[in-house]
Amino acid sequence: MEASVEDKKKIILVHYTEIENFILQVLLKNGVDESVAKHVAQGLVQASLRGVDSHGIRLFPHYVRAMKAGRINSKPNFQFDQTSPSTGILDADDTFGHAAGMEAVSKAIELAKSAGSANISVKKSTHFGAAAFYALEIAKHDMIGMSFTHADSLMLSSNGNRPYFGTNPICIAVPCEGEEPFCLDMATTTISFNAVLQHREDKKDVPVGTCADSEGNPTIDSAKASFLQPIGQYKGFGLGMMVEILCGVLSGMPFGRDIVSMYKHPIEQKRNLGHFFSAMRIDCFQDVKYFKKRMRIMMDEIRNEPRKNSDIPVMVPNDPEKKALARRSKEGIPVKAADWEAFLKLSQQYKVELKGI
Amino acid sequence: MEASVEDKKKIILVHYTEIENFILQVLLKNGVDESVAKHVAQGLVQASLRGVDSHGIRLFPHYVRAMKAGRINSKPNFQFDQTSPSTGILDADDTFGHAAGMEAVSKAIELAKSAGSANISVKKSTHFGAAAFYALEIAKHDMIGMSFTHADSLMLSSNGNRPYFGTNPICIAVPCEGEEPFCLDMATTTISFNAVLQHREDKKDVPVGTCADSEGNPTIDSAKASFLQPIGQYKGFGLGMMVEILCGVLSGMPFGRDIVSMYKHPIEQKRNLGHFFSAMRIDCFQDVKYFKKRMRIMMDEIRNEPRKNSDIPVMVPNDPEKKALARRSKEGIPVKAADWEAFLKLSQQYKVELKGI
Repeated sequence: MEASVEDKKKIILVHYTEIENFILQVLLKNGVDESVAKHVAQGLVQASLRGVDSHGIRLFPHYVRAMKAGRINSKPNFQFDQTSPSTGILDADDTFGHAAGMEAVSKAIELAKSAGSANISVKKSTHFGAAAFYALEIAKHDMIGMSFTHADSLMLSSNGNRPYFGTNPICIAVPCEGEEPFCLDMATTTISFNAVLQHREDKKDVPVGTCADSEGNPTIDSAKASFLQPIGQYKGFGLGMMVEILCGVLSGMPFGRDIVSMYKHPIEQKRNLGHFFSAMRIDCFQDVKYFKKRMRIMMDEIRNEPRKNSDIPVMVPNDPEKKALARRSKEGIPVKAADWEAFLKLSQQYKVELKGI
Repeated sequence: MEASVEDKKKIILVHYTEIENFILQVLLKNGVDESVAKHVAQGLVQASLRGVDSHGIRLFPHYVRAMKAGRINSKPNFQFDQTSPSTGILDADDTFGHAAGMEAVSKAIELAKSAGSANISVKKSTHFGAAAFYALEIAKHDMIGMSFTHADSLMLSSNGNRPYFGTNPICIAVPCEGEEPFCLDMATTTISFNAVLQHREDKKDVPVGTCADSEGNPTIDSAKASFLQPIGQYKGFGLGMMVEILCGVLSGMPFGRDIVSMYKHPIEQKRNLGHFFSAMRIDCFQDVKYFKKRMRIMMDEIRNEPRKNSDIPVMVPNDPEKKALARRSKEGIPVKAADWEAFLKLSQQYKVELKGI
């Protein structure tokens, strides 16, 4: 029997430990290296817990398909080349982006410990999910963490009628006294394409000024939305280029329109993505306690700034994600019926139990 | 006799060597250290040559006033503390931001040579003009250069009715085969306040979506424009916070609404600004020649992307500035009558000759 529209709108709640273990076990049954599988499970679940559904657990069935098709290598042979006291290059051997990123992060932290700061270029990687996963890990070590990735062409070029750059996100995480780190994780486009796909699934319009159709004309119709507008027009286009240089040109990977698309290219095709990570020890600039105290003061000041509309506070980046994290850790992660069905198929296929709350 | 409106609109052209020497000589007659004076003259003239009039020679009379009032120290005692192989802190002793920035850049380059990359925090500085001046200098050494500064509150907070952050620019410069480096130098607001002041002088409206009045409501009236909108709303606000953390919190300088304004506070008050500079050797990641070749390919590809409007090309950041540089180097820098008058006053006061073309 065909599921009704009502059924399709149904939301299943799943506890984060349940879905994390499910992802882990499915990957292990597919022969994925345990440390690789752990990073994928943790990264996807962290994004969902933080309310970033577009980059969370819903991507897992796609990742499994990409692995089975040969795009993603389940048993990577990482090769790290330290090229100076503070720099290095990681060849990720086409594995899951989450594992590539976390391997690079561990190198960045290690090098920064001795050199004060470190910059790591990653080549031969795949989709790494939410950039915050990596910067937040660096911030745990009293360092300022930054993470970047390029992506396939989706940003409508400034003055152009088609995209050259991808959504190319910028992410920074900074430790703070008394709460989880400050974290900015933003696409340089006004919206991410995974968010457009969600609007499309929900048959909702996209916000004004965020998208263009396949001719490069503005649209709010999520079904027609093909390209994404850069933030601040030529400025977002410039930021996208900055990220492309750090991730594509510096790593020796393809750039611009030559990048293999997540969804449009045959799924067996390798993506050859590049990432860039930076770690900087706070104690090389300030007493760590004093620095974190000042972060605390700044964040309190911002949240207490007078409001334009008394119902909507001035927020610090990451505030909505922190709220979601607190709520979803207790109440569970909401999963759409279609995604849940895809999980259940994997559950049957690999004989890994999965239960909602 | 009062100058007529026609006279006030008059543009004087001045050769860049003439105005650079004029600035240098006026500073030297004021007892400014020669190396400091050179950086100020070169920085202001470079901005004007590149068409960035808001950050160019027109600021010079203000700088002289600030120096004479005691805000800016003409004979700094720089103190540099190298805190690790790749990091350091420069105390700029309240001197001209241009000199502080170039001193920090020389340290960044030196440290990056041995450590692969370097990050320098600057404290006790003043207005440093255009951020491109510093990143471009780093790029001359086959490194990727980045420069940041915070500034006094001007960006309307996302969901707020007044500003907390300044225009807080982001700048990156990257070497390229066959032409001057790629350079992105952008305020995280939609427009800079010096650009608003220029619109006000010219009695022109500011572009839609760029400004708000003193109540936080959108306006295009340059006379009423008090606050600047962030690019991409909460995203630009987040980028402004990133820059504030790197420049204000990391350096131990004041941040947010505590920063002394360029124009509103008494001019004798010290500004205590912070900057942040980063240098990264390209050869730690790629063969330099291969990297520059790929930059060349990317820039050519972007400029050849299909256009939305056949008259307006898709541009790479810095293309308009490169055009201006070529034209103004030959034809001279255009100076408004009011600015020229201010220069002539300094010319008489300090007996330094100044002639238009």
